[in-house]
Amino acid sequence: MSAGAPDKRGFDLRRFLFSGAGWPYLLVPFIPIAIVLEFSHANASAIFVTSALGVIPTAALMGRATEELATRAGPGIGGFLNVTFGNAPELIIAFFALNEGLQEVVKASLIGSILGNILLVMGAAMLIGGLPRERQYFNHTAANVTSMMLLLAVVALIMPAVFELVQGTGLPRPEAEAVNYDSDVEKLSVGVAVILLITYAAGLIFSLRTHKDLFNPEHGPEDHVGEPWTVRKSVLMLAGAGVAVGLMSEILVGSISEASDSIGLSPFFVGVIVVAIVGNAAEHWVAIYFAARDKMDLAVNIAVGSAAQIALFAAPVLVLLSLFVGEFPMALVFNGFELGAVVLAVLIAQQVTHEGESTWFEGLQLLAVYAVLGLTFFFV
Amino acid sequence: MSAGAPDKRGFDLRRFLFSGAGWPYLLVPFIPIAIVLEFSHANASAIFVTSALGVIPTAALMGRATEELATRAGPGIGGFLNVTFGNAPELIIAFFALNEGLQEVVKASLIGSILGNILLVMGAAMLIGGLPRERQYFNHTAANVTSMMLLLAVVALIMPAVFELVQGTGLPRPEAEAVNYDSDVEKLSVGVAVILLITYAAGLIFSLRTHKDLFNPEHGPEDHVGEPWTVRKSVLMLAGAGVAVGLMSEILVGSISEASDSIGLSPFFVGVIVVAIVGNAAEHWVAIYFAARDKMDLAVNIAVGSAAQIALFAAPVLVLLSLFVGEFPMALVFNGFELGAVVLAVLIAQQVTHEGESTWFEGLQLLAVYAVLGLTFFFV
Amino acid sequence: MSAGAPDKRGFDLRRFLFSGAGWPYLLVPFIPIAIVLEFSHANASAIFVTSALGVIPTAALMGRATEELATRAGPGIGGFLNVTFGNAPELIIAFFALNEGLQEVVKASLIGSILGNILLVMGAAMLIGGLPRERQYFNHTAANVTSMMLLLAVVALIMPAVFELVQGTGLPRPEAEAVNYDSDVEKLSVGVAVILLITYAAGLIFSLRTHKDLFNPEHGPEDHVGEPWTVRKSVLMLAGAGVAVGLMSEILVGSISEASDSIGLSPFFVGVIVVAIVGNAAEHWVAIYFAARDKMDLAVNIAVGSAAQIALFAAPVLVLLSLFVGEFPMALVFNGFELGAVVLAVLIAQQVTHEGESTWFEGLQLLAVYAVLGLTFFFV
Repeated sequence: MSAGAPDKRGFDLRRFLFSGAGWPYLLVPFIPIAIVLEFSHANASAIFVTSALGVIPTAALMGRATEELATRAGPGIGGFLNVTFGNAPELIIAFFALNEGLQEVVKASLIGSILGNILLVMGAAMLIGGLPRERQYFNHTAANVTSMMLLLAVVALIMPAVFELVQGTGLPRPEAEAVNYDSDVEKLSVGVAVILLITYAAGLIFSLRTHKDLFNPEHGPEDHVGEPWTVRKSVLMLAGAGVAVGLMSEILVGSISEASDSIGLSPFFVGVIVVAIVGNAAEHWVAIYFAARDKMDLAVNIAVGSAAQIALFAAPVLVLLSLFVGEFPMALVFNGFELGAVVLAVLIAQQVTHEGESTWFEGLQLLAVYAVLGLTFFFV
Repeated sequence: MSAGAPDKRGFDLRRFLFSGAGWPYLLVPFIPIAIVLEFSHANASAIFVTSALGVIPTAALMGRATEELATRAGPGIGGFLNVTFGNAPELIIAFFALNEGLQEVVKASLIGSILGNILLVMGAAMLIGGLPRERQYFNHTAANVTSMMLLLAVVALIMPAVFELVQGTGLPRPEAEAVNYDSDVEKLSVGVAVILLITYAAGLIFSLRTHKDLFNPEHGPEDHVGEPWTVRKSVLMLAGAGVAVGLMSEILVGSISEASDSIGLSPFFVGVIVVAIVGNAAEHWVAIYFAARDKMDLAVNIAVGSAAQIALFAAPVLVLLSLFVGEFPMALVFNGFELGAVVLAVLIAQQVTHEGESTWFEGLQLLAVYAVLGLTFFFV
Repeated sequence: MSAGAPDKRGFDLRRFLFSGAGWPYLLVPFIPIAIVLEFSHANASAIFVTSALGVIPTAALMGRATEELATRAGPGIGGFLNVTFGNAPELIIAFFALNEGLQEVVKASLIGSILGNILLVMGAAMLIGGLPRERQYFNHTAANVTSMMLLLAVVALIMPAVFELVQGTGLPRPEAEAVNYDSDVEKLSVGVAVILLITYAAGLIFSLRTHKDLFNPEHGPEDHVGEPWTVRKSVLMLAGAGVAVGLMSEILVGSISEASDSIGLSPFFVGVIVVAIVGNAAEHWVAIYFAARDKMDLAVNIAVGSAAQIALFAAPVLVLLSLFVGEFPMALVFNGFELGAVVLAVLIAQQVTHEGESTWFEGLQLLAVYAVLGLTFFFV
């Protein structure tokens, strides 16, 4: 990535890997491979796998560029940038899926991101961070605020489904590609989306202005890798990474239907497990990395915070976007698996965060729940 | 209200308003207006709106008289009076609705009171109290006891619905006026009501006798407005207010069906949102008033305590009353919206109270959830 | 039980009763009565009642023998023995029920054990322990770990039901004896069982090795009754008690269908309430006994710990056993009552344990919830 001599690049790479921020760049070769396969109309499964792997470095670069820009911008705007662009890759993938008419994959990937962050990321962080230690501590006040945001957001996300269950035509089948709901539940979804975005904006004011001390994990200088980037470099990198994420996402999304058929996985499973893992891979690694260095504040904040952002920001933005993109608007009506899993995951998040302590066994239990969910989704 | 000179009355009024206890009396003129409209068979919507506004001052007077009587009666009996008459206006409104055969409106207003207290009252109190402060604190032990009462009561309230879902003819449609359930679920409802009332009685012994220190928020003298009333005056005022509440309630309830038609709101929405707000308006204001003065103990206690009382006392009393009033007994089977909303609200209450701290953002989030629920109910 | 003179035996018996560990042996006469009734093909209800009472002393003896063996084996292996054989009587009863094809009774008794431990045992312990005291304290860190195990296990236990609700033929009717589910949900059940057993094994490592200090309630010498047994005596007693439990269980299970008919209770009620109480009677008493002596750590640990063991160990073991015993495998699909009740009970367990404090009123509330559930199940 740096413009130095090969020798220096090799050194950088090793430092990157050691620092936990660089491993995704090992997957860079999959970017051109995916492009070549796509243009040669190769086997859909091959396109799917390579583009899924290709998303990871572009998302990682996007995260890095956002952080560099945020550092330059100072705490206020920087925090805003960090928080808002934090889930940009997921949003971009979802945008292309929306455009393809794969609304159920979009919703599955939203729920999958929430589940993945709470169970897989936090679970792996607590397990790996906890193994060499008696227990780890984190700021439970901040974690509680975030996990309450998550609880409240999830209430909002499930009310349209309750509406459909009681009043309407029922929940979407997990096999569906998209369901065109009647206009009442579409209006309700838009209303809920607006309320969520207002809450999200208020949350930004809360965390960046009135209560910023609460959310100010001290990033030591050792948390920063290498030289800080200039604003110009950051902006260029952000733009370039955005384009690359978009390209990989379009290839990925275009291959989902066919690839899931030929691999024998349902599009639902692909959305809720595979796409969700790919879109969050970079954060996953960072959270584990911080946990291993006993910075559980950061690790828990990444996990629960990302989940809250998906629920409060990505989901409503996609609902509003769906008014302009795709054949018909996307109603916020999740299927039965998604509802069950997300309610249980959020209850678990409450329970796990409210003590401000964790052990390896808690991590393992979270992973066990993720395994149970994954197994259940596998049979869909 | 006082018999003094106009000058003195003006002074009293201003003090009342300033003290937060007097504003409802500004709505007194709606009482005669509602009566006149009712007897002149005016437009149902006009009767509905004026009688709804007319309920508020009568309920406020009833609350004031109860409190005065309680002060005179000393902590033991006084506490009992306060707690038991605290929701008398809601009970009176519900009694008239029961008598009209509007069982679904009764159930909606019970759930609406629980939701309103937890989300709207506590939300507004935390938002307004929290805006000028970093954070507010309250006695989380007392709040936890109350919110656990709420959790346990809600379990009891939803089991008959689970019974109907699994065994019976299903949940009531939100559009229904009343559903005549079979005798098994009616017996079950009566049994659950008896268990709840026994628990309620035990709760009174707990909070007024064995653990009274826990629930003894120190009312400073500044919390009392004006001269204390004599017992005679208190009793007369209580009786008079009771009659006035009854009169307004009968007018209100008589107009619900027709008014909801012509306004274009479902009777369900009217019950769960409008009636619930009107019946609790006085407490709402008092909770916000205490929160603004940083007495969060009192504010949270009013909000969660009222919700618990509705669940543990008002609901079972109405089930037992329904054995004698109306065509057929009211089974404790709530509809899908009510079940979903009340379970989520109670989980939120747990989460919000267990820390013993609040911020403006928590308040705003509670209001956002209330908005989402209200929006969902609006489309019913 | 001891080989001493009648005089000494009388003394022992009184000491036993006083110590809280001996009362079940008063029920020993029901063992031969049940056997005689069974072989004389007496009335099914009489067989059911006597064998149910006869199970209690055999289960108590099994518990005692396990504990004696555990004491001899030292903390590591001893803890393992204690934890793993702790629910052996329930497992044995369930095994015979499985063998009879009464899969729904097996599942009902699993859920009933979880409910009974959380609501009945913990409720009675908190009520009786709390009455003479302002409040009681327990180690909330240990209780939290256990109640989180319970939460996570319950997530796992309900996912196959979610699967059936969304994808399949629906939940079993509470009246069913057994339901032969399709192979997808059977595979899913086996997978979930394996994940639960791995988690259970990890939990043993956690509680017996890496974090054993957390789960080390100091048993004072006064907690031990009489002389410690030799290893030989313990093993013989364990084997003998196992045979006796098996014999009583087979008689009990063989009479369930006919007896429930003639008593007028559903097999579901018998499984979820009666069998669950009988199978856990010995632990129930011990928990109350410790609570009365203000050893809430032990009491809460027995209640929540037993519930977690049922979910994490007994349930998956029975699923795996069902592959070899009975006509078709037992899918982990619970009926609507079981799902509703267990989710609510586990939420209550979280709330009750997270403070590390209890009062008599909390105990009474838990009992009230148990009464509501029992009443609901009675009408099935």
